[in-house]
Amino acid sequence: MKKVAVILAGCGVYDGAEIYESVLTLLHIEQADAEYQCMAPNIEQMHVLDHRTGDEMPEQRNVLTEAARICRGQIMDLAEANPNDYDALIIPGGFGAAKNLSDFAVQGAECSINADVQAFVHAIHSAGKPVGLVCIAPALAPKLIGQGSQCTIGNDADTAAAISSMGGQHVDCAVEDIVIDHNNKLVTTPAYMLAGRISEASAGIQKLVQQVVAMA
Amino acid sequence: MKKVAVILAGCGVYDGAEIYESVLTLLHIEQADAEYQCMAPNIEQMHVLDHRTGDEMPEQRNVLTEAARICRGQIMDLAEANPNDYDALIIPGGFGAAKNLSDFAVQGAECSINADVQAFVHAIHSAGKPVGLVCIAPALAPKLIGQGSQCTIGNDADTAAAISSMGGQHVDCAVEDIVIDHNNKLVTTPAYMLAGRISEASAGIQKLVQQVVAMA
Repeated sequence: MKKVAVILAGCGVYDGAEIYESVLTLLHIEQADAEYQCMAPNIEQMHVLDHRTGDEMPEQRNVLTEAARICRGQIMDLAEANPNDYDALIIPGGFGAAKNLSDFAVQGAECSINADVQAFVHAIHSAGKPVGLVCIAPALAPKLIGQGSQCTIGNDADTAAAISSMGGQHVDCAVEDIVIDHNNKLVTTPAYMLAGRISEASAGIQKLVQQVVAMA
Repeated sequence: MKKVAVILAGCGVYDGAEIYESVLTLLHIEQADAEYQCMAPNIEQMHVLDHRTGDEMPEQRNVLTEAARICRGQIMDLAEANPNDYDALIIPGGFGAAKNLSDFAVQGAECSINADVQAFVHAIHSAGKPVGLVCIAPALAPKLIGQGSQCTIGNDADTAAAISSMGGQHVDCAVEDIVIDHNNKLVTTPAYMLAGRISEASAGIQKLVQQVVAMA
């Protein structure tokens, strides 16, 4: 059975992993007859936001500890995960991808990627294994996958421009669809960059997962 | 369109709402052509657990604030929700149902229910509207719905005995199935009391949601 690594960026859309997207990714991996292993970097979150009010909360939380909530505690420290154990990789969205896995939310096109994330993705990609990026995570494609990589975050002009200025090729895409960069084995979908309903995100994520698993 | 109230007990299986079950409940409500509104009591959690290690963490978290993470901030204070606005109610599982919505995890058959939860469920039930309880939440059925109510938590003997001693009627049930108490318009499913995989929980929750929406 093909095994998919899933990198989670915390627990909650505004400071971590988007929870609907994360659960739908895991559900669709199972339903594609593959298995998953969740993992996350063992680092402090950029900040903690009250998801009702949007206000910053005066506390610190750890990305790995919080991400463990999504997957019933069945999670690995990304630094201890071996890329050779996996056939593919998917990163769900949520601001955590731009705040914890990278600093894209603050630095935009000048962003840098967390070293453990960069190393793991590089190992998967350079071994010819497919990578799926969901929602805002495709904004990291030029740095994670390389110059010229084709991806989508839907149709947000500012984010598309940032992707272009980092050397990526942005392609507009509907919420229930995917963009496939066959050369790079990279699959992306807008999910909650565009979705108004869970079902819309689910349709795009299902296509992404099926494509990633088929390429693995 | 029928509108379903969903009471969340926090964010994370061990001290709050089970996240897979919560998201699957919302997904299946949408896919049954109904709409949902999440709500939660505005109270402190019983405690905060590290979901990787199981250890208690030296901090406090609010049930409503944490539950907001699951549903992208779109949540109401249960105390401010009007039962007349809803056609049905579903409570997903997770230990939060037994630690925050009630003290069943500590008191067992001697448990009491949070006053806002009790009042909301009573108003829904006494208006002849259906109630769905998932995973461990059905253990509260005798107190929430009344003596003689029929329900399932799967096949755990101790929990079934506690339900019986509170005056409920426990019925063993497979993970992908539901128990329907037609007299009380009560629908229950074991979900992660038995599930080994998300797909199993999804199958039972889908049946529960479809039945609840059909009865609404």
